[in-house]
Amino acid sequence: METRVEFIPSGGVTSPKGFLAGATSAGIRSKAGDRLDLGILSSEVHCAAVAVFTTNQIKAASVVLCQKRLQGGRAVAVVVNSGCANACTGESGMADAVEMTDLTAGRIGVSPDYVLVASTGVIGERLPMERIRAGVGQVVLKADGGHELATAIMTTDTVPKEVAVRAGEDGFVIGGMAKGSGMIHPELATMLCFLTTDASVDADFLRLALREAVDISFNMVTVDGDTSPNDMVLIMANGLAAGEAIIPGSRQGEIFQQALNQVCINLAKAIARDGEGAGRFIEVTVSGAASVADARSAARTIVGSPLVKAAVHGSDPNWGRVVAAVGRSGAAVVETKINLYMGDICLLNDGCPRRFDRGEVVKLLSNCEVSIALNLNLGSAQATAWGCDLSEEYVTINSQYTT
Amino acid sequence: METRVEFIPSGGVTSPKGFLAGATSAGIRSKAGDRLDLGILSSEVHCAAVAVFTTNQIKAASVVLCQKRLQGGRAVAVVVNSGCANACTGESGMADAVEMTDLTAGRIGVSPDYVLVASTGVIGERLPMERIRAGVGQVVLKADGGHELATAIMTTDTVPKEVAVRAGEDGFVIGGMAKGSGMIHPELATMLCFLTTDASVDADFLRLALREAVDISFNMVTVDGDTSPNDMVLIMANGLAAGEAIIPGSRQGEIFQQALNQVCINLAKAIARDGEGAGRFIEVTVSGAASVADARSAARTIVGSPLVKAAVHGSDPNWGRVVAAVGRSGAAVVETKINLYMGDICLLNDGCPRRFDRGEVVKLLSNCEVSIALNLNLGSAQATAWGCDLSEEYVTINSQYTT
Repeated sequence: METRVEFIPSGGVTSPKGFLAGATSAGIRSKAGDRLDLGILSSEVHCAAVAVFTTNQIKAASVVLCQKRLQGGRAVAVVVNSGCANACTGESGMADAVEMTDLTAGRIGVSPDYVLVASTGVIGERLPMERIRAGVGQVVLKADGGHELATAIMTTDTVPKEVAVRAGEDGFVIGGMAKGSGMIHPELATMLCFLTTDASVDADFLRLALREAVDISFNMVTVDGDTSPNDMVLIMANGLAAGEAIIPGSRQGEIFQQALNQVCINLAKAIARDGEGAGRFIEVTVSGAASVADARSAARTIVGSPLVKAAVHGSDPNWGRVVAAVGRSGAAVVETKINLYMGDICLLNDGCPRRFDRGEVVKLLSNCEVSIALNLNLGSAQATAWGCDLSEEYVTINSQYTT
Repeated sequence: METRVEFIPSGGVTSPKGFLAGATSAGIRSKAGDRLDLGILSSEVHCAAVAVFTTNQIKAASVVLCQKRLQGGRAVAVVVNSGCANACTGESGMADAVEMTDLTAGRIGVSPDYVLVASTGVIGERLPMERIRAGVGQVVLKADGGHELATAIMTTDTVPKEVAVRAGEDGFVIGGMAKGSGMIHPELATMLCFLTTDASVDADFLRLALREAVDISFNMVTVDGDTSPNDMVLIMANGLAAGEAIIPGSRQGEIFQQALNQVCINLAKAIARDGEGAGRFIEVTVSGAASVADARSAARTIVGSPLVKAAVHGSDPNWGRVVAAVGRSGAAVVETKINLYMGDICLLNDGCPRRFDRGEVVKLLSNCEVSIALNLNLGSAQATAWGCDLSEEYVTINSQYTT
């Protein structure tokens, strides 16, 4: 089926009809107040809304509150801050999160029941509520405010991550933005992603569609294996586009899923590309696996292996580390059946090392995008995972985060 | 029960009665032949012998061969090389491994059925058999050759790792040596460990005792989360000490287990201390866990977290990363019950951040030994794991391994 998904240049969360966003420098990240660190995303009308959250048992106040408020599958706005995770802050932290949503609700004139909150930053510190109270009052909501908001949620990110696509017969739009560059790992990790759409989709369909899209995108990205208490991927659908309600199983439903997948994969790859200290983007494709679960596990284990990542950083064709990683991934593997490629060069065929031009492979591994492919030759399942190299700079960044 | 385990100064695998060892520079690691890289450990009489192997599905020829030969629980000698893992080398690699044991068997005059082999180094390259044939002939077996052998099996290790203890009423001795500093992770990883004892212990008891000792020692060490196709922990008991056969459940059996545990913990800590590029040794103790499995999983996840390791490297008291790591460890945790200590300073009490003197904690984290303790307050199980900080040098070492 042709999916007719078209990328919108410079698109983002305010590309779909009826979404507004804005941000301000509240002084959370720096007292000088010279960095955007607080923002709001809202819809002009009520939305169907669902989210996927961190699997970490330690959950930030924002996550606990959103889980509660999303039980009804409705929302209007989300307020977000960077610079402080408001995690491990106990009851006071929860009161702060609630107050953030109260302030935002008052500002846009809705019940706090429909306002969500997200935070990212250092764990274990209280939110500077005075600055947040003043900040919420300063945010100006604009029809083109998506970029401002995407910038406000950055922490160690070097670039904001935004995308929007138009799809479907009636031209609905899905927009998205994300942050995250460290602590990124399957099952979501210090990652925030907000998705918006003017398509008319109910919460039940949205829940299924988001799960599928997250499984093949954000859950296939790894930077360092750590996960965080704050992660969420939220989608809000306001139905303001022309056209009928989109239902599962329909042609429009298929198109919606394809479009959502593309938006999520685009943002997931942007996160991997912006991994802390990363110089190289790594794409690992595992095919011929006995099951999809095996293919995913194998691809993620390879792209997450510190030894593979360090080898790519040094342009070292140390393919044995790739094989060792797949061997511990839990996926079914038979050594004598494995084919391994770096770029288009075959290094291992049916488990036997092939002679290869070392210089050629070193050259491939010196590109800013490196691709590794494995065929396990055991079945027909396939998966792709994304990550980045491990550099000395990653260590430097993460040894001085709170200091 | 008092265990009466006494460390033997400068002890190693040749400390127990009747064990001989030696090594040579065969030219496997460097063609100049200026580094010890091939050695033999043997007993004057047949031994009960058992081993624990890598859980990686990709297994080196040496591992496959040893698994087969140890089915009968007997061995006399093991030949070891560094510089080449002889993994992912197919049938030719297996033939090379068999030939190594044939050569060794011929040299010491026993059946090859009782000779084991271990290899460590680069994956996917064939052993230089001509140099190995010459090398095996050069090895001189000596009653004090343990140190030479411990040096020969080093790869990126900066120091050989050896220990021996005397214990029990009749004064049996357990000796050990190990190598490993990268790819070190629970379930064994690029780690070789050879244990010897003159105690009279049968293979069945030895199997149980080794499993217990490995679970609380080598399986609680992590350097980088990667595992290798080559790992093994081998124990050989020749029964040459005075005294009756030691049986499980007896007082001597208890003492043997305690002594073996101490030998393994000593070597495991030496591996963590020598982690690639490591400047700091980290000990994480988790108490109050609901189960031993939970305690182990929590301790290992914390000590293995790249973000925790990088924070320790930078002496950054970023305790939120410790809590985030325990939250994703799979262990049952209740945020409001966690107590967290760095050294003897309490940073979190019942999940609430405590005011602490930042300078004091930075000072603690600047020591070469850092201890982190967590009480989950959910039960009575406890476990300790060991690791090291993550430094820029780790990345440098591992980005240039084969080049």
